[in-house]
Amino acid sequence: MDVIVEVTEMGKRARQAARELARVSGLAKNQALTAMAKELLDNKVDLQRENAKDLQAGREKGLSSAMLDRLNLTDARIHAMAEGISQVAALEDPVGEIVGMKPRPNGLLIGRMRVPLGVIGIIYESRPNVTADAAALAVKSGNAVILRGGSEALHSNRAIVHMLGHGLKQAQLPVDAVQFINTTDRAAVGALLRLDRYVDIIIPRGGKSLIERVIADSRIPVIKHLDGICHTYIDQDADLDMAVTLTLNGKMQRTGVCNATETLLVHAAMATECLPRIGQKLQEAGCVMRCCPESLKHLQSWGGMAATDEDWDTEYLDAILSIKIVGSLEEAMDHIANHGSQHTDTIVTQNHERAMRFVREVDSSSVMVNASTRFSDGFEYGLGAEMGISTDKLHVRGPVGLEGLTTLKYIVFGAGQTRG
Amino acid sequence: MDVIVEVTEMGKRARQAARELARVSGLAKNQALTAMAKELLDNKVDLQRENAKDLQAGREKGLSSAMLDRLNLTDARIHAMAEGISQVAALEDPVGEIVGMKPRPNGLLIGRMRVPLGVIGIIYESRPNVTADAAALAVKSGNAVILRGGSEALHSNRAIVHMLGHGLKQAQLPVDAVQFINTTDRAAVGALLRLDRYVDIIIPRGGKSLIERVIADSRIPVIKHLDGICHTYIDQDADLDMAVTLTLNGKMQRTGVCNATETLLVHAAMATECLPRIGQKLQEAGCVMRCCPESLKHLQSWGGMAATDEDWDTEYLDAILSIKIVGSLEEAMDHIANHGSQHTDTIVTQNHERAMRFVREVDSSSVMVNASTRFSDGFEYGLGAEMGISTDKLHVRGPVGLEGLTTLKYIVFGAGQTRG
Repeated sequence: MDVIVEVTEMGKRARQAARELARVSGLAKNQALTAMAKELLDNKVDLQRENAKDLQAGREKGLSSAMLDRLNLTDARIHAMAEGISQVAALEDPVGEIVGMKPRPNGLLIGRMRVPLGVIGIIYESRPNVTADAAALAVKSGNAVILRGGSEALHSNRAIVHMLGHGLKQAQLPVDAVQFINTTDRAAVGALLRLDRYVDIIIPRGGKSLIERVIADSRIPVIKHLDGICHTYIDQDADLDMAVTLTLNGKMQRTGVCNATETLLVHAAMATECLPRIGQKLQEAGCVMRCCPESLKHLQSWGGMAATDEDWDTEYLDAILSIKIVGSLEEAMDHIANHGSQHTDTIVTQNHERAMRFVREVDSSSVMVNASTRFSDGFEYGLGAEMGISTDKLHVRGPVGLEGLTTLKYIVFGAGQTRG
Repeated sequence: MDVIVEVTEMGKRARQAARELARVSGLAKNQALTAMAKELLDNKVDLQRENAKDLQAGREKGLSSAMLDRLNLTDARIHAMAEGISQVAALEDPVGEIVGMKPRPNGLLIGRMRVPLGVIGIIYESRPNVTADAAALAVKSGNAVILRGGSEALHSNRAIVHMLGHGLKQAQLPVDAVQFINTTDRAAVGALLRLDRYVDIIIPRGGKSLIERVIADSRIPVIKHLDGICHTYIDQDADLDMAVTLTLNGKMQRTGVCNATETLLVHAAMATECLPRIGQKLQEAGCVMRCCPESLKHLQSWGGMAATDEDWDTEYLDAILSIKIVGSLEEAMDHIANHGSQHTDTIVTQNHERAMRFVREVDSSSVMVNASTRFSDGFEYGLGAEMGISTDKLHVRGPVGLEGLTTLKYIVFGAGQTRG
């Protein structure tokens, strides 16, 4: 009960802070961000002392060394956090832009103005740097934020938010613009998800179970990233070298990420020429190949093994690639529609008509021609920073930058017009 | 159980139809819409025979004469439905537009393409004409639609959808693009709201209890219209005649609608000059005035009565206006933030700075200067038609036209680029 009251009070304060933040100048927001970055650097020792508590607790709880490493706020990581905030400060302010302003026959001038969403709730389980990243993006886009981090990083997150608050205060911005749920009580998450009166949007960042819980329990709209089952399709008119390069890069440049290629589709006419070369490279790179019966004929000698039905619906996040031969562009697109996750899919082809059909007809947040699926990313797209990648269709698809944290309201300028 | 299976099968068919619809030309969609309109006109007699069954059942159930009238498909109403479909055909096709295409330093060309949302579920309780309107907007925007109408109009809605299906078939478009839940079993609504695998968005249209049930039960994102507590604020620099005219028009031009003014805020400096004139006009027009203590002094002689706290949070949908005197623009905006519904609010002023502050700082789907709140409407905004008005912030705010039924996906054109 106490937790619910506490989270509700945070919501009220966030709503009030959001109103103030929505009307401050871009300059004031940038001054706050600069001060926030400086606070982290100036108080590095304090932050590392708090971080040490999390690391100690983590060791006692038996966290893996990989998890402990992720938790560890080294000098370099604190500098990177501060640098990330400064980069957000350097981005263009999305708020206040007016678009599509046009006169109507009755003289009314009608268009839309870009404004902050209001209050954003972020539920995450990742590294403490998400705390600083998310706060910076929220402040820059004029939104207040309520942060709920993973319990392993409680001390670190609390310290970061405390320092960011000092930065906000120095620029005369409301400290309540960045609030942190300072408890590991899981009831706090439930309370936040039902706070539709004060919170406009929930962004969960973490594993699939976290995201599914949030979807199931939230009364507030959610922007989420679910699966990343990305496809690379090699068309019959693909450039052979490019097909090999893009497959290797899409799969192996980094394997544990959502925009890595998980399934390779190859047009039957390219199989003989293409697959042995790809098989050799993948084997050299240490990639497991799960093959349809047809492609297995070409890949068995490179270590390929038979795929099961499950493979086509699996996000490996690992050095594993499922490979299937298809008879046509239509079959490739059907496979993507039936097994993909509407994240990122690319076609390799020199044929303009099929490239354009693929771009039009594949219903994914990013559809590419002759580019590695790995490019699906806010920085690569020029957004400057991202709050995550949305696999939803509503509001924002793909990388969520500052614009994704805003909305457009109608504005109408009249001279006394009345409706007849 | 049978209902769940049935609705799920409808979802699968809708998903398939949506894929087909997403890739057809604007010409084909217009041919379908033209044929759909013609089918309604050509089969008017059949439609009216089915409609007579609903009217008969309604009389037996004791529906009010107002409700029976709304249900009645007269010749004129059938013509208006067909005309509405033709008007949608004449609108520009929103699908396929490419925006913001720009080269990145690595040569990738990155932008966004407008595409249909996919499958829309519409749950409504209003007149049968919503069936034709909603189907036309869905088809034009390339979306498949699953319709669930009110039980009172079951025969009429079924007949309309059947005729629209003939129109789709004539243009070689999939008949499953427009499906109708042909049962009054309420379990069907629950099944639809949990069909997140096949349905991309739910649009409820009807009374508040319907909408609240949909929000509570839906696993699918909802675009909704909740309350319309709209404000007209008369600033100290308002033109007196304009202030009177806009108040009268905002409140009384039509009272039972969401964009009617429900609360009048008046700057103290204007009260003596302004309120007696407004009071006289409102009394003549038969409008009840619920006044704060200060405004009551000016309005008692025109029939004004004391407001209660509840009045400021009430959407009257009737010839009733709550009236409050405020000391400043800030107080007016605070009142709107605390009591409004983020629908439509207007300021009457000749002062540019305060006009622009109002436009920037009031967080409503439509914010106006010197215009009647009654203008908040898809037709008035030049959208050509609307699926309703959204009081949500995500995806679409204000009148929902064809664009609101689409989404933007990223498209990337490369020449073999890989990520390093």
